[in-house]
Amino acid sequence: MSIAKLPSAGFSITVRLALVADAGAIGRVTTAVGEAGAIVTALDVVSSDHRRVVVDLTCDAADSTHAEQVTTVLSELEGVKVRKVSDRTFLLHLGGKIEVTPKVSLRNRDELSMAYTPGVARVCQAIAENPEDARRLTIKRNTVAVVTDGSAVLGLGNLGPEAALPVMEGKAALFKKFAGVDAWPVCLDTQDTDEIVDIVTAIAPAYGGINLEDIAAPRCFEIEARLRERLNIPVFHDDQHGTAIVVLAALQNGLRVVGKQLSDVRVTVSGAGAAGTAIMNLLLKSGVGDIIACDRPGALHRGMPGLSPSWRKLADCTNKDNFSGTLAEAVAGSDVFIGVSAPNILTGADVATMAKDPVVFALANPDPEIDPREAAEHAAIVATGRSDQPNQINNVLAFPGVFRGMLDAQATNWSDEAALAAANAIAGVVGDDKANPSFIVPSVFDPHVAPAVAQAVKDVLRPPQNGNGIAA
Amino acid sequence: MSIAKLPSAGFSITVRLALVADAGAIGRVTTAVGEAGAIVTALDVVSSDHRRVVVDLTCDAADSTHAEQVTTVLSELEGVKVRKVSDRTFLLHLGGKIEVTPKVSLRNRDELSMAYTPGVARVCQAIAENPEDARRLTIKRNTVAVVTDGSAVLGLGNLGPEAALPVMEGKAALFKKFAGVDAWPVCLDTQDTDEIVDIVTAIAPAYGGINLEDIAAPRCFEIEARLRERLNIPVFHDDQHGTAIVVLAALQNGLRVVGKQLSDVRVTVSGAGAAGTAIMNLLLKSGVGDIIACDRPGALHRGMPGLSPSWRKLADCTNKDNFSGTLAEAVAGSDVFIGVSAPNILTGADVATMAKDPVVFALANPDPEIDPREAAEHAAIVATGRSDQPNQINNVLAFPGVFRGMLDAQATNWSDEAALAAANAIAGVVGDDKANPSFIVPSVFDPHVAPAVAQAVKDVLRPPQNGNGIAA
Repeated sequence: MSIAKLPSAGFSITVRLALVADAGAIGRVTTAVGEAGAIVTALDVVSSDHRRVVVDLTCDAADSTHAEQVTTVLSELEGVKVRKVSDRTFLLHLGGKIEVTPKVSLRNRDELSMAYTPGVARVCQAIAENPEDARRLTIKRNTVAVVTDGSAVLGLGNLGPEAALPVMEGKAALFKKFAGVDAWPVCLDTQDTDEIVDIVTAIAPAYGGINLEDIAAPRCFEIEARLRERLNIPVFHDDQHGTAIVVLAALQNGLRVVGKQLSDVRVTVSGAGAAGTAIMNLLLKSGVGDIIACDRPGALHRGMPGLSPSWRKLADCTNKDNFSGTLAEAVAGSDVFIGVSAPNILTGADVATMAKDPVVFALANPDPEIDPREAAEHAAIVATGRSDQPNQINNVLAFPGVFRGMLDAQATNWSDEAALAAANAIAGVVGDDKANPSFIVPSVFDPHVAPAVAQAVKDVLRPPQNGNGIAA
Repeated sequence: MSIAKLPSAGFSITVRLALVADAGAIGRVTTAVGEAGAIVTALDVVSSDHRRVVVDLTCDAADSTHAEQVTTVLSELEGVKVRKVSDRTFLLHLGGKIEVTPKVSLRNRDELSMAYTPGVARVCQAIAENPEDARRLTIKRNTVAVVTDGSAVLGLGNLGPEAALPVMEGKAALFKKFAGVDAWPVCLDTQDTDEIVDIVTAIAPAYGGINLEDIAAPRCFEIEARLRERLNIPVFHDDQHGTAIVVLAALQNGLRVVGKQLSDVRVTVSGAGAAGTAIMNLLLKSGVGDIIACDRPGALHRGMPGLSPSWRKLADCTNKDNFSGTLAEAVAGSDVFIGVSAPNILTGADVATMAKDPVVFALANPDPEIDPREAAEHAAIVATGRSDQPNQINNVLAFPGVFRGMLDAQATNWSDEAALAAANAIAGVVGDDKANPSFIVPSVFDPHVAPAVAQAVKDVLRPPQNGNGIAA
C-alpha cells in the first residue's frame, strides 16, 4: 500500500449496521472491515434483541473512495444491513469549529453597565487619549488575525475564501489550544495584492499580530513585506516562517545525531516557493554555507535564463559553486535533502548517491517527495509532514508559541533573530540526550514546546519599556 | 441632583481602607460614603487584628469626578488610610471582554486529523464545489461581523477604531449572551465610504450577517445601501434599525395604554440623523400618517433652503401640512415626542402644550432631551435610554433576536417587513394585560424577548428552500 493510503482518522466513518444476532455476527463484520484495509476504532451496540443487534461501527479509511469501498463490502455481507453512513469529519465541522465567548458576566444591570454603556464610555475615552492602551483594555492584547485569500489552501490550490475557512478555523482552534492565543479567521474575497494590503492595514487596530496563511507565492512575499512596513504589529506568514523554524529545529537535531555541523553541510532544497524560500533564508542566517535551490527548471543558478525576481534573488545568495543541473544531480553528494515540492520526485537510488549519513526531509503533503520507507533504506534520518511517520515536521510546533511570545512582548515587528531563537527552543525540547534518528522534533502534543518557543521569542523581541501605565 | 448624575455601577470603585479597629469604624466609613452621594454595594474584610481592620469597600459613584471626591472624603476621615483605589470598570476590561474558543476537542492525533489536516481538506473541497455549504460546515452559519469606523462611538463622537473596540466587544458579548450569536468586532482604520464598502465586501465570506455600528451619518446610509446591493447576506445598521424597532415597539404599547391609534397620532421627532431617520421611516411603514422631523434648523419642510439630500428626502415624505417652525412649536399639539438628539432641549412647559395624554420618548444618552421626572409631570408616558428610569428604550431588545432570526433563516437580505415583525414581537412580550405607563417595553433581561424576535424575523425572511444538502 502506498504511503499516502494508510488509514487515518481524517477519513473515518461511522456505519450503523443491523445484524442477525448470532454468536459470530460482529466478528464477521470486523473481519470484513479489516480485510478491506480499514481499521475498526469503535463498536457501539445501539440496540439488541434476541433476533437482531444494531451497532455503530467506526473505522478509519485511507480516503473517501476507500470509505465507500468499505461500506460496499459491509452491505454485501450476508445477514447485514447498512442503515446509515456518517462521515465523522463532516459531522465535526457542522456549524464551525470555533465560537466567540464572553469573558465577562452579563447577568444583571450592574454587570451590563460596566461591560457596556454607560461604563464602557470611560474605557473608550481612555483609549482615544492613548491608543496604546488598547493593548491592555481590549482583545488586542491577546488576539491575532489569520488572514488568507484562499489562493493556496493546503495542497489543494486556489479554492477561494469560503473553502479556506475550515482551515483558518482549525488554525484558530490550535492557537487557543496550544498557546491560549485568540485567533480569528479573515477570509478575503480578493486576490489583489494592493487590496489585500489595504484591507489588512484597515482591520489591524483590533489585533496584536497578523498571521498570513495559504496565500500563493510570489504574491505572499510582497504582501508580507508591505504590511511589515505599514503596521506596528508583527506580520508572520506561517507557510514561510513557521515551516522554516520547524525545519531548522529538526535539522539542528538531525545533524547532531549524525555528527555534522550546519556550517559544513551541503543542503539541496526542492521547491523554491513560499516555504522553500523561507527555509533557505533561515538556513543561511543559521550559518549553512552551501545550499542549492531546485525547482521545475532544475538547480537555480546565476546566469540562468528566465528567472523570476524572487528566484533571481535566491540564485544570488545560494549555490556558492553556481552548480547547474537536475535535482537528482544536485542531490548527489549532498548531506541534506529538503523537499517542499511535489510527490514522488526522488527515489531510493537518488538517496544512495548522497553523502555519508544523509538526512532526508520529504515534506510534500500528503504524498512526500519519496516514500519515507524507501528513503530510510539509504538515509540516516528521514522526516516527513505526515503524522503516521516518525519525525513529523509540523508548523503546530512553531506558530502557537511564536504568537504567544509576540503578544507577550507587545512586539511591533517580527525578526530573523526571533525565528532562530524559536528554532533553537524547539530543538532544545528534544535535547542532546534524547535525540535519535526517529526523534529529532518533539511531539506536537508535547506541552513544553509552546512555552519554550514563546519565552525565546519574547526574549528576543523584548517588551517595549512603557512607563505610562493606566490606572486599572 | 441632575438625572445624569445618579450613581451607577458603570462608575463603581473599590477602595482598600485600613481602619482603626473600634466598634464604630466601619459605620463611620459607610456613612461618609453615603453622605458624599455614593452608594455602598459591597464591603469585604481583607484582614483584621485587635488594632486594625483592612476592608475593600465598593461603591457606585455618579461619574469619575464624583469617584475622586468620594476617595478624598474617605482619606480625610480620622483613623482611616486609603491604600488603593481600583476602578472596577477598567479592571473588567483588562485583556478584553471576549475570547475565541474551540468547539472541537484537540486532545490527540485523531481529533487533530479531523479538525485540521488531513481531514479538513475534504471539507474545504466540498465547500469549493458548493460555496453555500459554508453556511453549514463553517462558522458562517452563526457568525456576524460588528463593523465600525469609530466615527460615532456612543455619544462620544469620532474616537477612531481602537477606542471603539470596547463597545464592539461589549456588543459581541451581548450577541452571545442574549441570542447565542457569535459576533466579531471589525474596527476599521478608515472613514472613507468607498474603502469601507470594499473592505466589508471582501471580509464577508466568513459571516452570515453584517451589523454596522457607530458609523456617522450621512456616511452610514450610503455604506448600508451599497453593501446591501453587493452582498448576499443581510446588512443591518443597528443605530438605525435596532433603535427604530424598539421605538416602534414601545410606541405601539404606549399608544395602547393611552388609547390612541398609530394612524391618528401626530409625532414630532427631534434629531434627523441615523437613528431619527430610521425611526421615521419605520413609523411611516407602520402607518403613522403625521410626522414632523426637527433638527437644528427647526422643522424640516419642503421648500426649506439648504437641505442635505437625506433631509430633503425626509421632508418629502413627512410633514403632511408642510409645517415650518421651531421644535417647541412643532411639539405643541403633538401626541408623541421622540428625541434622539441632544440633552435638555425641551421643558415641562413644552410638554404641557402637547395634545392630551402625551407620550415622551427622550432618548439622548446619557442626558435626555428633558429630565424624565420633569416630563412625567405633564406626560402620560415617559421613556428614556437610561437604565435607572422606567421604560428603557434599549437596542439590546432588538439586535440579538434580529440576527438570530436572520441566521436561522439563512437570510440574504434585511427588509422593512422584518423590522415591523420584530417590533410587534417585542411589543407582544409585554402584552395588553401587562402594559401600563411604566411598562411599555420588556426588561432587557426578559428571556422571552430574543426568541420571540428571532422567530418573527425568521418567519418573515423565510429560509431558502435548499434541496442540495450535503451528506454529513
